[in-house]
Amino acid sequence: MTATDTTNKLSVLFLNCTLKQSPATSNTDAFIAVASNIFNKLDVATETIRVVDHHVSFGNTSDEKGEDEWPKILERIYACDMLIIATPIWRGDRSSVAKMVVERMDGIMSEGNDENGQYPTFNKVAGIMVDGNEDGAKKASASIMLDLSEQGFTLPVNAFTYYVGKAGPGPSYIEAGGDKHFFTNNMTLLMVHNMLHLAKNLKVNPYRTDVTALKKVAKQMSE
Amino acid sequence: MTATDTTNKLSVLFLNCTLKQSPATSNTDAFIAVASNIFNKLDVATETIRVVDHHVSFGNTSDEKGEDEWPKILERIYACDMLIIATPIWRGDRSSVAKMVVERMDGIMSEGNDENGQYPTFNKVAGIMVDGNEDGAKKASASIMLDLSEQGFTLPVNAFTYYVGKAGPGPSYIEAGGDKHFFTNNMTLLMVHNMLHLAKNLKVNPYRTDVTALKKVAKQMSE
Amino acid sequence: MTATDTTNKLSVLFLNCTLKQSPATSNTDAFIAVASNIFNKLDVATETIRVVDHHVSFGNTSDEKGEDEWPKILERIYACDMLIIATPIWRGDRSSVAKMVVERMDGIMSEGNDENGQYPTFNKVAGIMVDGNEDGAKKASASIMLDLSEQGFTLPVNAFTYYVGKAGPGPSYIEAGGDKHFFTNNMTLLMVHNMLHLAKNLKVNPYRTDVTALKKVAKQMSE
Amino acid sequence: MTATDTTNKLSVLFLNCTLKQSPATSNTDAFIAVASNIFNKLDVATETIRVVDHHVSFGNTSDEKGEDEWPKILERIYACDMLIIATPIWRGDRSSVAKMVVERMDGIMSEGNDENGQYPTFNKVAGIMVDGNEDGAKKASASIMLDLSEQGFTLPVNAFTYYVGKAGPGPSYIEAGGDKHFFTNNMTLLMVHNMLHLAKNLKVNPYRTDVTALKKVAKQMSE
Repeated sequence: MTATDTTNKLSVLFLNCTLKQSPATSNTDAFIAVASNIFNKLDVATETIRVVDHHVSFGNTSDEKGEDEWPKILERIYACDMLIIATPIWRGDRSSVAKMVVERMDGIMSEGNDENGQYPTFNKVAGIMVDGNEDGAKKASASIMLDLSEQGFTLPVNAFTYYVGKAGPGPSYIEAGGDKHFFTNNMTLLMVHNMLHLAKNLKVNPYRTDVTALKKVAKQMSE
Repeated sequence: MTATDTTNKLSVLFLNCTLKQSPATSNTDAFIAVASNIFNKLDVATETIRVVDHHVSFGNTSDEKGEDEWPKILERIYACDMLIIATPIWRGDRSSVAKMVVERMDGIMSEGNDENGQYPTFNKVAGIMVDGNEDGAKKASASIMLDLSEQGFTLPVNAFTYYVGKAGPGPSYIEAGGDKHFFTNNMTLLMVHNMLHLAKNLKVNPYRTDVTALKKVAKQMSE
Repeated sequence: MTATDTTNKLSVLFLNCTLKQSPATSNTDAFIAVASNIFNKLDVATETIRVVDHHVSFGNTSDEKGEDEWPKILERIYACDMLIIATPIWRGDRSSVAKMVVERMDGIMSEGNDENGQYPTFNKVAGIMVDGNEDGAKKASASIMLDLSEQGFTLPVNAFTYYVGKAGPGPSYIEAGGDKHFFTNNMTLLMVHNMLHLAKNLKVNPYRTDVTALKKVAKQMSE
Repeated sequence: MTATDTTNKLSVLFLNCTLKQSPATSNTDAFIAVASNIFNKLDVATETIRVVDHHVSFGNTSDEKGEDEWPKILERIYACDMLIIATPIWRGDRSSVAKMVVERMDGIMSEGNDENGQYPTFNKVAGIMVDGNEDGAKKASASIMLDLSEQGFTLPVNAFTYYVGKAGPGPSYIEAGGDKHFFTNNMTLLMVHNMLHLAKNLKVNPYRTDVTALKKVAKQMSE
């Protein structure tokens, strides 16, 4: 990155997929704050959207019309350089809100550009944050990684970080002092630094994959 | 990449995680051949290891001693620029052999270098190929993506490709003409081209993440 | 079952977890119709609730207050002998609506009776139906099975049935003629017959597990 | 159950799916011991097989010939009334050994009896035990539940129990005092008591499902 970077600050968008509307306390929000601070120190602009504070309709297109506020969120996704899906664990899996988000993100794959068919997310980097009082972080992370990879994002080394406690009911991130849990902080630092490196890399040297041309090759191969 | 690339050809290693030893027909092998051909045309050196043809011990270290032949395979992983885990689907999930492979790859995370603690896999790119007669490809892919990301690999846009048929018993990849299935070929082409772009990127501009230093920062954050 | 059973017809409740509100065509609805017909022929009363046609709030209690219509649905769950969660596949997994449903069902576990602490769902039998144009049925089914088992339901042999087509975009259940797919119909028949046997069994001979007493034993074991 | 039960004691078989051969310490074994004790007090005969102590070949039939010792294990599965798959967590998922076991159990579905086509496992009840130092128990349990349900087993209320610790490396079951963890002990007690109830139920009133006849019905439905 050159000196001009200071005027073109990189940005990260966090989608908080808690089930609880503001102003209820969100453990996921507290977890996001830790990563956000690290990004800020690295001169990255940060933004957080708490998805349930907006009316997002169930569906799998970029605009479900009516009261749907997803288009506003999608605009922010298109504006960022890095995206982090942050979800609490419920029933050992990502939240229904996090699932709803990736369903809506399927619309992205229909928006390839005219030049080479790349979706608007090509050259953006993604990460995943999962917090719960117990078990489920890797299942949630894995599912989200697959979705983001197919939807146009690149995933760095250690693309995820999580906090979970012992089996059964117990304190969640804030009460458990998750912000002082070494393993989790280490994962978060690795994720942030690796995301940033990759985002800079793709800024300088973006994918040249011609999605439209490859579709034609695939057709020829399949005859 | 510069002209010197011709002498430093990039390489991809496929780990075929079929349950069946040679010389039994492997559908996964036929699927690998398609991706391998695409890589070859892009001037990438290819190598395939059929894991069950070697004695790999159950365990989670880089060398389980005794008859264990994993160290030979690990050496090939360390030698490649790109790694593809290719697995058949059994019971709607990756094969036990594919699971055994990622368990053994946990040893990688103990082998950080002296300079910055990066594992030997940092700056390598990974992909996933899954074939089955039916259902299970995304579950298998997602689980493997998480493993590879934590174990030091970077995952490009569309890091996976798969073939599956209709619900229930039915023809597998070869018999079903999977090599003529447009969707699958398109996914394979995207995966290969994106992997290659990212591998070149990381060759020119490798991660600078100081894993050892971040560990210290994580400790300070956690006090 | 005795002669009095004719006046105490067994009942099954289907929760259709499509993303689409009525009157949009729901493939999941067409799939449910097949199972419903089989149940009817076996003299079982059937009822279907299309969850998105009701305002269900995100949350994990039995009543999230305000506009929440979950309590009405929960009432129907408590009234049935057998419950079937039917979900379409999106992103290789159960729908966000299906996830929202099991999150809300967590409230059930707080409603143990005074006598022995059993939840209101003890002695009810559950099944799962999944339809998609491709891959994801087993992942969706497995996740739902775990949830239902913990939330008080018993799962018979072959507790699930599904329809999926080949890898990639393609016709869904209705267009694909899923109602004529032998494997799927066979799975559906097995599920229905086994659910019914088990429901009758538990009617005659319900669980005697004293949940409250076992909690005390667990405490003693853990001292 | 009648007085004759004393001569027809019910039995449970545990399959320990640790990666480590005897005599290495197995946390999973220590966890099994807790459930085994509870079963013994309820007058149930118990047996444990540590799978890796036997040569089990990769495959998906009941006899892979050669050195394969799976047939001996399958014989014990057929002899038991209740089966528990017990697996450690590696990479947030069931062990490769546990995956290998369910792959081999696919052979069961080809062994329907002459009378009604029921597999030898019909009327057996199953449970799942998962232990790890951290995250992964529900993912592992869910996958195994689906497999066992399709392979002929019935799953009671709360068919699984698990122990996991906080995110990251940490003490496993034995060192962490998992045998004193209230939540886990409570889950284990519930699983055991519910399994036993269901096993007795199915002894007295076994499934009458005519698998062979339903196959014919499915064919007619699919024409």
